[in-house]
Amino acid sequence: MVMKTVKNAAGRSVPLEINGQPVIPFKGIGKHKPEGRKYSPVIPTCADFPDDGNKVLSSLEEALRKCGLRDGMTISTHHHLRDGDLVSNHIFELASAMGVKDLIWFPSASFPCHEPLIKFLDDGTINRIEGSMNGPLGRYVSEGKMKGTAVLRSHGGRVQAIQDGEVRIDIAVLAAPTADSFGNAKGTSGPSACGVLGYAKADYMYADKVIVVTDNLIDLPCFPMEIEGNYVDYVVVVDKIGIPEKIISGTTQITKSPDRLLIAELTAAFLEKSGILKDGVSMQAGAGGTSLAIAVFISEILKNKGWKSKFGFGGSTKYMVKMLEDGLMNFILDAQVFDLEAVKSIENNQNHVPYSVFNAYNYHSKGNLTSMMDIMILGATEIDLNFNGNVVTHSDGYLLHGIGGWQNCLHARNVILPIPLFRDRIPVIVDEVTTLCGPGEMIDVVITERGIAVNPLRKDLIESVQGKGLPLKTLKELKDEAELICGVPQKPQFEDDIVAAIKWVDGTVIDVVRKLK
Amino acid sequence: MVMKTVKNAAGRSVPLEINGQPVIPFKGIGKHKPEGRKYSPVIPTCADFPDDGNKVLSSLEEALRKCGLRDGMTISTHHHLRDGDLVSNHIFELASAMGVKDLIWFPSASFPCHEPLIKFLDDGTINRIEGSMNGPLGRYVSEGKMKGTAVLRSHGGRVQAIQDGEVRIDIAVLAAPTADSFGNAKGTSGPSACGVLGYAKADYMYADKVIVVTDNLIDLPCFPMEIEGNYVDYVVVVDKIGIPEKIISGTTQITKSPDRLLIAELTAAFLEKSGILKDGVSMQAGAGGTSLAIAVFISEILKNKGWKSKFGFGGSTKYMVKMLEDGLMNFILDAQVFDLEAVKSIENNQNHVPYSVFNAYNYHSKGNLTSMMDIMILGATEIDLNFNGNVVTHSDGYLLHGIGGWQNCLHARNVILPIPLFRDRIPVIVDEVTTLCGPGEMIDVVITERGIAVNPLRKDLIESVQGKGLPLKTLKELKDEAELICGVPQKPQFEDDIVAAIKWVDGTVIDVVRKLK
Repeated sequence: MVMKTVKNAAGRSVPLEINGQPVIPFKGIGKHKPEGRKYSPVIPTCADFPDDGNKVLSSLEEALRKCGLRDGMTISTHHHLRDGDLVSNHIFELASAMGVKDLIWFPSASFPCHEPLIKFLDDGTINRIEGSMNGPLGRYVSEGKMKGTAVLRSHGGRVQAIQDGEVRIDIAVLAAPTADSFGNAKGTSGPSACGVLGYAKADYMYADKVIVVTDNLIDLPCFPMEIEGNYVDYVVVVDKIGIPEKIISGTTQITKSPDRLLIAELTAAFLEKSGILKDGVSMQAGAGGTSLAIAVFISEILKNKGWKSKFGFGGSTKYMVKMLEDGLMNFILDAQVFDLEAVKSIENNQNHVPYSVFNAYNYHSKGNLTSMMDIMILGATEIDLNFNGNVVTHSDGYLLHGIGGWQNCLHARNVILPIPLFRDRIPVIVDEVTTLCGPGEMIDVVITERGIAVNPLRKDLIESVQGKGLPLKTLKELKDEAELICGVPQKPQFEDDIVAAIKWVDGTVIDVVRKLK
Repeated sequence: MVMKTVKNAAGRSVPLEINGQPVIPFKGIGKHKPEGRKYSPVIPTCADFPDDGNKVLSSLEEALRKCGLRDGMTISTHHHLRDGDLVSNHIFELASAMGVKDLIWFPSASFPCHEPLIKFLDDGTINRIEGSMNGPLGRYVSEGKMKGTAVLRSHGGRVQAIQDGEVRIDIAVLAAPTADSFGNAKGTSGPSACGVLGYAKADYMYADKVIVVTDNLIDLPCFPMEIEGNYVDYVVVVDKIGIPEKIISGTTQITKSPDRLLIAELTAAFLEKSGILKDGVSMQAGAGGTSLAIAVFISEILKNKGWKSKFGFGGSTKYMVKMLEDGLMNFILDAQVFDLEAVKSIENNQNHVPYSVFNAYNYHSKGNLTSMMDIMILGATEIDLNFNGNVVTHSDGYLLHGIGGWQNCLHARNVILPIPLFRDRIPVIVDEVTTLCGPGEMIDVVITERGIAVNPLRKDLIESVQGKGLPLKTLKELKDEAELICGVPQKPQFEDDIVAAIKWVDGTVIDVVRKLK
């Protein structure tokens, strides 16, 4: 849709209205102060629920009917079953069969396994998706095929939007690896164990109706309960909620690429020489091959120095679990886990603690975890000469990724982006990011296989590493090197139509994605 | 105050307004359906909180000032430090010194140690207390000395009132045996360990401002966190929040009275012969001497039969802990614990689980734990011939107790009241209860040392025990026996002035307490 736009504080042209609702343009970091009160769900009463606590229904269809599923409703799901999710598609198959139209799907993330939803976007069952657009769904959006406008939020922005009532969930359908008949549920045990359900909290607390779907119904009480039965309307037992090998990869592996290993080594060296890595450090790293290598290098340094990390924030993998078990880390806090070792650890290790994204990432909170983290290792699809970052579109203009926790994590003390200088011969450092997801003032260090660029705003960091043998360069120098090798890639051509809005952590609009020509 | 009253569904005269706010008369069990939405606190933002998460202030006074303490505010506290609480009185000492007037104290319970607050009720610092009135405070209220009208709620009714916005907490001051600088807090560890903080959840979730007061500040992250730092505004470190020997009695002991032991034996026999006690039973019992004896008798039966209790709900004591450890109980769920053994257990035993009163007792919830409990052992100050129960006033008319979880627990499948026929030569069974706290239709069995009366509404129970050698009697017969021994006590004389309102679990007014002549 072509819309009237204004320039926001980041200089991006954004609309004042999306999907018929007014939105606020990005005002600058920490500049937008929310007004008003949190969203307040309808008051329920025990008088309307069975005394024996048994809320089990025979099918998801029955549950959706009892929840009053109808045109235009917002249906939320979490992404803990990842690419093995068997529940989300089924919701819309049922809705389509029931003739319901114009639904809004509000997942905490989408995966390639959700490609079948395209037919429900085509036939009008789904109006739009507000959530990450990984792979095929993103391509569909970029081609301007989705009826409504996509809205992409960070994990923290998603819970902020729920809490503040920007998104009102009519029905939350929450897959649960283990649940009891009252609706208490957890992520451990059962054939579809995913370890933790840290993305479900805002959904069950604020949704009008809550359905728990499980393939592992156990006797009451299901403990520890990550979903509280007191918020649940119905429980549905199905044969299978997920495909285990796709829920947990089990193959999260350290990179073997010499370039990526070099990036990891440079990152560890930078952390050590700058003094960021220290006794009592707190840290977060992803599950990508480079991040895992960095974690291993960091472990070595901690061990050699006799230091300990105070805590790490997951998604965790066996590498972080090993740090915990080796006594190199006091606690792991986790809103999701990435491999089987981490699933086992969170079930059995008292110091491996479920920690909801609601607590870790929500910017409309009385503080959160991310601003307290010393080391934050993140990626990006593009970085521009002003250190601005993009994580949702590729340089060809296609929307292919969700924001995840990336924007939230930018609030950490030291944000380090270990990234290759180019991918598939496309340079990562550009003049201006295709889509602005995070302002450059929040990104401190870019580490490539050919050099390290420290944000000039971080004079303290530059001083801390000067003369210590690290290959310090400017982003411009790095960009020039890449272009010498790859050439200057062609810019994508966009139409005026806005196909997706990118929200900042405070609910304002930081950028948009436009339809590809 | 003399007020216009109407008869509610229980036949009690209650006002339509209390403390200037409209109230709803009791309509019958399950009859009042709430309208509207939950209370919605103001949306905060991380932009207003320190990036390093450090919210520590130098004093409670500074914290109260920063929270904007002023006339007429509602200040909430929890009662986990019981008669050893050193924080609550201090709040009002500071408020008085600051010249603040007309505060409402909203504790989850009060204890004899709070008697010093009478001077702040006298001097106008405190307008009224909405919460339990144990001992001296109750006497003060009964004598008509409190400026405002007291409002007594069950534990579940208290969280219902917070959730629904009937009580809006301006400042929650939450004592915490262990906390970190961000405000994450727990009930274990530290010199003032109380085991669990199950009564603090509604307060921190819904209060406008939240202050955590601790005498044991530890490194971040404080886990497991029962208070979530994301909801906390300030943390105050003091020398001492409680007197350990008064927080935990350490002397919770089985009754040695032959009459009470007989009551306990009869109770166990009734539970066994009626078939209520069975494999997989769920149960709750208090910490009184008779209840503890019943727990021991029940343990014996479970052991002999090779049965197991599915779960017990606390406040737990060493007797319940022993059942857990001996394999006679799968889980203990606890919103509070009563002795040192239970504190240790909840810290170390994965099957001894903190379970907030918010989850267990809130009637404005999508179901709660109490209606699922098989066996509920409760007390009463009076029972009348219609099985109605009183737990707040004595037969002399004085308001001397809080409701605690009593009303909530009445929702269990089998509500058993093991009570002595008389106390201090005052019969417990009366023609009509002085104050109605629970309707007779919810009380199933009264067990005294001279016989067992089963509620005629429970034909199934009567049938299940008939001809099994139990001393079954009617309440009338038991009452007559008691009066033969003690005589008929004089009725208290009341004035018209209403000094306290008794709320039902759904927020309606079930009865009032009047000023004594």
